[in-house]
Amino acid sequence: MTLAEQMAGLARDAKSAARALVRLSTDQKNACLRAMADALERNSERIQKANTVDMEAGKAGGLSEAMLDRLRLDAKRIAGMANGLREVAALADPVGRVLEDRKRPNGLRLQKVAVPIGVIVIIYESRPNVTADAAGLCFKAANATILRGGKEAIHSNRAIAEIMVAAAQATLPDFPAHAIQVVPTTERDAIRELLSLTDLVDLCIPRGGEGLIRAVAESSRVPVIKHYKGVCHVFVDRDADQKMAEEIVMNAKVQRPAVCNAMETLLVDRSIAKQFLPIITEKLAAKNVEMRVDAPTADIVQSHKSAKIKPASEQDWSTEYNDYIVNVRVVDGVDQAIEHIARYGSAHSDAIVTANEERARRFLQQVDSATVYWNASTRFTDGGEFGMGAEIGISTDKIGARGPMGLEELTTYKWIGLGNGQVRS
Amino acid sequence: MTLAEQMAGLARDAKSAARALVRLSTDQKNACLRAMADALERNSERIQKANTVDMEAGKAGGLSEAMLDRLRLDAKRIAGMANGLREVAALADPVGRVLEDRKRPNGLRLQKVAVPIGVIVIIYESRPNVTADAAGLCFKAANATILRGGKEAIHSNRAIAEIMVAAAQATLPDFPAHAIQVVPTTERDAIRELLSLTDLVDLCIPRGGEGLIRAVAESSRVPVIKHYKGVCHVFVDRDADQKMAEEIVMNAKVQRPAVCNAMETLLVDRSIAKQFLPIITEKLAAKNVEMRVDAPTADIVQSHKSAKIKPASEQDWSTEYNDYIVNVRVVDGVDQAIEHIARYGSAHSDAIVTANEERARRFLQQVDSATVYWNASTRFTDGGEFGMGAEIGISTDKIGARGPMGLEELTTYKWIGLGNGQVRS
Repeated sequence: MTLAEQMAGLARDAKSAARALVRLSTDQKNACLRAMADALERNSERIQKANTVDMEAGKAGGLSEAMLDRLRLDAKRIAGMANGLREVAALADPVGRVLEDRKRPNGLRLQKVAVPIGVIVIIYESRPNVTADAAGLCFKAANATILRGGKEAIHSNRAIAEIMVAAAQATLPDFPAHAIQVVPTTERDAIRELLSLTDLVDLCIPRGGEGLIRAVAESSRVPVIKHYKGVCHVFVDRDADQKMAEEIVMNAKVQRPAVCNAMETLLVDRSIAKQFLPIITEKLAAKNVEMRVDAPTADIVQSHKSAKIKPASEQDWSTEYNDYIVNVRVVDGVDQAIEHIARYGSAHSDAIVTANEERARRFLQQVDSATVYWNASTRFTDGGEFGMGAEIGISTDKIGARGPMGLEELTTYKWIGLGNGQVRS
Repeated sequence: MTLAEQMAGLARDAKSAARALVRLSTDQKNACLRAMADALERNSERIQKANTVDMEAGKAGGLSEAMLDRLRLDAKRIAGMANGLREVAALADPVGRVLEDRKRPNGLRLQKVAVPIGVIVIIYESRPNVTADAAGLCFKAANATILRGGKEAIHSNRAIAEIMVAAAQATLPDFPAHAIQVVPTTERDAIRELLSLTDLVDLCIPRGGEGLIRAVAESSRVPVIKHYKGVCHVFVDRDADQKMAEEIVMNAKVQRPAVCNAMETLLVDRSIAKQFLPIITEKLAAKNVEMRVDAPTADIVQSHKSAKIKPASEQDWSTEYNDYIVNVRVVDGVDQAIEHIARYGSAHSDAIVTANEERARRFLQQVDSATVYWNASTRFTDGGEFGMGAEIGISTDKIGARGPMGLEELTTYKWIGLGNGQVRS
């Protein structure tokens, strides 16, 4: 069997499974999710044993300590996956929601109803917990998943998926075994083959670094929703409450710098730069944040005794550091801030701090990002913070889903026409 | 300048225009649309002169009579385009609708708001009226359009776009001249270049035959929403009101056979086949409809004196005839009908005729098509019939928009977070 045939078989099986999933009730899906959670905990040792195989190979292959830590599964992390599945079971079923309901003059009733997307390919890197998290979310929305994790985690991923499927089948004899599948090969071309199957695969969601996502988007023939980098900005307007601005800037930068909704660039209105920048420099220096600055900022802050200050390069403005580093630029008001974000931003999350409603509205309207904030930290762009419960990621795309992607964003819709014999004249 | 540079310039101009369009008010957009309509009528002769150049070249190039008819613009067709624009002006603005509004426990208010998609490439075939229709709809949703019609219509298309832009600029000095652009070259590779510009182009909507759409989808790096063929089915259940079934079947097939929501295949429950098929055969024969049938259908209807009856080939079941031809198959109940549609359908529009609610619900749930009907004709899948006013087409895709694509479907959304200093803890 060629790789192409193998992938087509996998996708056909997923398509059949997706058709069966549509028939499951909410209670049936939730019972399966809870059984999967229990089974992961019950089989914790088996999962850890599979994980040890991956860890040994990773060590032998020279993976970094950070990579090995991401790969590692212990009882606590396995319990974390199980609890994640229980939380998904507790969330409202996104399928079947009536999004619109209209009656036409001829008596035809048209309902726009949320339905599963179908077959979703998830591509991710080293963390094996994504296997349970992504498969659980997709399953609750009645989608079949094909999971392709990092090759260094394949034994862990397969063990997790096998245990989940077996638990669901024990709970529900009708559970389609191919609803959750791990790509059985680590061959690189498997992804390209899978993502050429436009009649069988409905969507691909890549999660990982910029390189992975670009490669997937470049090679895919099926729709891709990208969960791309976050080059997030905070703009401090001349009419900002300065205390509020300090808190938002510090929160957006240092509360958790390694995540995509952390701020990478601070933009400050020229008319308040001389007051605001020395204060924020002091605070950033206290948290050991390196500053990469434009010339006007340098003029104001370079005399600070302990701050780490460097000139920003052109490339810095579009870099996602995920670290204790921040770009700082002085701008001539909100329009130049909007301009800067259009040029260097990644359309993820951007904030304005101001007491001026007109400028706030201009920023909210003209900044073309998935989430825009007025007087709040960029760090809120998150499924949990949005009240979605769980999320599969943050979409920086515009077609399909934008921003946090929870259960509802894992559905599409169909139109249902209810008539009593209507024909068109 | 290379073709790649030319296309990148076009797309950059469109992106800038899209940013300017976001700032226009509803009244400004509507005034522009009405001015465009008036200008098309006022410049009817100029458009017809440009159209004559295309028609002469088309005749010299050996275009068929049907193609030439599609290409032809007379005063009546130009008035039709103008009225289309006036209708779009009268429709509600799809931008700015608040789709969700929630307040989080920390006081952060989150609004999900409809916003323009950005830059949309429309690819279409010979009819030059699509230039005005598509540009008008996209503009009302504050999107910039790059139009690429058939090469045989380029003079007509350019004249229409130039007149529309000039009229809008005369009405509104801020109107961005690159909001509506016609690709200035007929080079084939222009499409591929344009659809590689993922940072500048947000969406491509191809309209036309299967070959065009497949070619676009294969070569595009930007998201594509396909307006694909309609292999639509009507299933007549054993509990159908037979009179209603006759009317729906005849309407779906012959009211306008050349359109994508016309029925191509009739599925009949075995238990009523002997009663229903002779009656419907009589009616189809009266309308000169050729029947391509399976063996059980042939057994029942082949003795009909005037009906044109042929055995259906495997390929017939997935063919969009757009003509007075219908496939007919006898099936063992609703499950086999669903199975048939899954295998041969195009996920466009499918209907069940039955008085049995349980089977109707099963059909509506399990047929994975953009629109599914219970006791109504498939012919209703249409923006106008859905109450959307106008449409840019019927999407058979699942990501982005599904079914009729009107103004609302030409928007995406962003999340707006309104705070008073919230930071994440």
